[in-house]
Amino acid sequence: MNRVHNFSAGPAILPEEVLLEAAGEMMDYAGSGMSVMEMSHRSKTFESILNETKSNIRALAGIPDDYSILFLQGGAHTQFSMVPLNLVKNGKADYFITGNWAQKAAQEAGNFISVQTPYSSKEKQYTYIPDFSAYVPEDDLDYVHICENNTIFGTQYKAVPKTGKVPLVADQSSCIFSRPFNISDYGLIYAGAQKNIGPAGVTLVIIKKDLIREELPGNVPQMLRYYIHDKSDSMHNTPPTYAIYITGKVIKWLIKNGGLAGAQERNEKKAGLLYDTLDSSSLFKGTSEKESRSLMNVTFTTGNEETDAAFIKGAAALNISGIKGYRTVGGMRASIYNAMPYESVKVLTDYMKEFERKQ
Amino acid sequence: MNRVHNFSAGPAILPEEVLLEAAGEMMDYAGSGMSVMEMSHRSKTFESILNETKSNIRALAGIPDDYSILFLQGGAHTQFSMVPLNLVKNGKADYFITGNWAQKAAQEAGNFISVQTPYSSKEKQYTYIPDFSAYVPEDDLDYVHICENNTIFGTQYKAVPKTGKVPLVADQSSCIFSRPFNISDYGLIYAGAQKNIGPAGVTLVIIKKDLIREELPGNVPQMLRYYIHDKSDSMHNTPPTYAIYITGKVIKWLIKNGGLAGAQERNEKKAGLLYDTLDSSSLFKGTSEKESRSLMNVTFTTGNEETDAAFIKGAAALNISGIKGYRTVGGMRASIYNAMPYESVKVLTDYMKEFERKQ
Repeated sequence: MNRVHNFSAGPAILPEEVLLEAAGEMMDYAGSGMSVMEMSHRSKTFESILNETKSNIRALAGIPDDYSILFLQGGAHTQFSMVPLNLVKNGKADYFITGNWAQKAAQEAGNFISVQTPYSSKEKQYTYIPDFSAYVPEDDLDYVHICENNTIFGTQYKAVPKTGKVPLVADQSSCIFSRPFNISDYGLIYAGAQKNIGPAGVTLVIIKKDLIREELPGNVPQMLRYYIHDKSDSMHNTPPTYAIYITGKVIKWLIKNGGLAGAQERNEKKAGLLYDTLDSSSLFKGTSEKESRSLMNVTFTTGNEETDAAFIKGAAALNISGIKGYRTVGGMRASIYNAMPYESVKVLTDYMKEFERKQ
Repeated sequence: MNRVHNFSAGPAILPEEVLLEAAGEMMDYAGSGMSVMEMSHRSKTFESILNETKSNIRALAGIPDDYSILFLQGGAHTQFSMVPLNLVKNGKADYFITGNWAQKAAQEAGNFISVQTPYSSKEKQYTYIPDFSAYVPEDDLDYVHICENNTIFGTQYKAVPKTGKVPLVADQSSCIFSRPFNISDYGLIYAGAQKNIGPAGVTLVIIKKDLIREELPGNVPQMLRYYIHDKSDSMHNTPPTYAIYITGKVIKWLIKNGGLAGAQERNEKKAGLLYDTLDSSSLFKGTSEKESRSLMNVTFTTGNEETDAAFIKGAAALNISGIKGYRTVGGMRASIYNAMPYESVKVLTDYMKEFERKQ
């Protein structure tokens, strides 16, 4: 077994002990005589996996009973339509445009409701989170939408907008459970699992119960209704059982390792090492503005395409994988999600220093 | 490792060699230094998994190039809305009602188009497939929909309706790749993977390319458009990578074991043993009509609830798992999908004979 230093932006690194456990249970989960993949979702064994995962999420993140926890399919992209289709009342929402996914979410919502974009950082290639300190949402907005961490551009909200009685909806796909947060700031959080908490194929939705409406227009597909999934406890149809099982293991691993405070401490230490390396380098430059820097995705460049390519090539020889920047952006990106060990970041920063010394 | 005889109706038994391989590759897939779960869906390694799985499906089932193969999420339930939303032209389709899922598919389609039900077996608790030999679809139908195997009631089409120029749409969730079929009979086949070909979380769609339309009403969510998934080769967003990987292994296993003809031979032998046992029993009775019997789900009862319960309880002691009938139907159901070995069916029928002898 020769594991690489896996800086992939997603699907992404998982804790080794989670994978080892899963491998060990592949033929026989907990004396059931079968893999979790082979198990009826209506079996007591799977129901207890689902229920334990839900209650562990509540414990980990302090989610009270007036929020529902749903395990859905289709990724954040499916939420781009579910959110407006389910939350529409007055037919108007604010979207903060801080990157590709925020933009795509707004575009899809625009097919159903009127979308306003009070803030955007597009004019500076999404290199920062706009200053929204003076923001006051209109009273009649259905919701305010943000993408809390921007995987491609390496920016992250340090605090979320205060939206008062207007629900805040956050795409947390690339930052969920990476630091403590106050659930009462949010009406709805959604996240594809495949970056911080599990494999691709399950989408976690945490939604305030009073936002779940039974009455929706007849042409909203049943599978796109939060109400349908909530009333059946994510079992309206066969859920992605194995992805939920692995996610459950990652949640347990987070709890065992100091919960969200522990995750934040480790994530800040890892990001700190990388940003310190960038700030003391005369070759590498971080591409996002300092006060908007992401703890999850560290984007940087030498400013020279050939040098970047040489750096990425040299990294591969050291088993450093997945640091090429997003295809439309270029440069480098080190994704250092929850499961990324400090030691791997150290290997990367040592290589950066060595590479710079040799220039 | 103590494996049970797993007769679960779905998620269901997988080939042991597939699970063993997956366990062995959990920490390091093919020298990549990571699990397939941890791998970017844009990596060359995952792209080759996806492409190989697609070309193997073409080889296994004789799918020509004028059909697209898509890997989607959300199960058959999501197809219940995608089918009418994407195929609507005149706004009218025929649904054959042969069970719960056929009924649910028709009900969801009825939210978007006008649904006609020329055949139904509801009046006899769905215990048979109606005789549709005289069926001629109206010229202006958008499509004809069938559920080809009815998991709950243990019935299966022996042949599919001839629909001429009107596309036939089939839910094959519980019979896909269990026997040879002629793709030219179909316009669209969909199947949740979790019964015959993989784990829950991926839906296989095989669709004739001329049915894929770019122009749809603006209020059809992007994620519910076949066009979007087809043009991006199932990579519009992060696909359920691990579920696709396991499905790919099952497809390879099917090819190695004689393809669809081999599957049919094994499935007929297993079902034959069970139905012969039922037909020669004076205690157990098959609940579906003989000429409509399913090769995948064998439903039976003693006609006495207490005896059924005693039978199910005694089965558990022999490691026979998952034979309780569907919650609304009662009795017993033995699901004997592709991966179910003959030996397990033999254990079940031996137990049936022994149980009957002791009554």
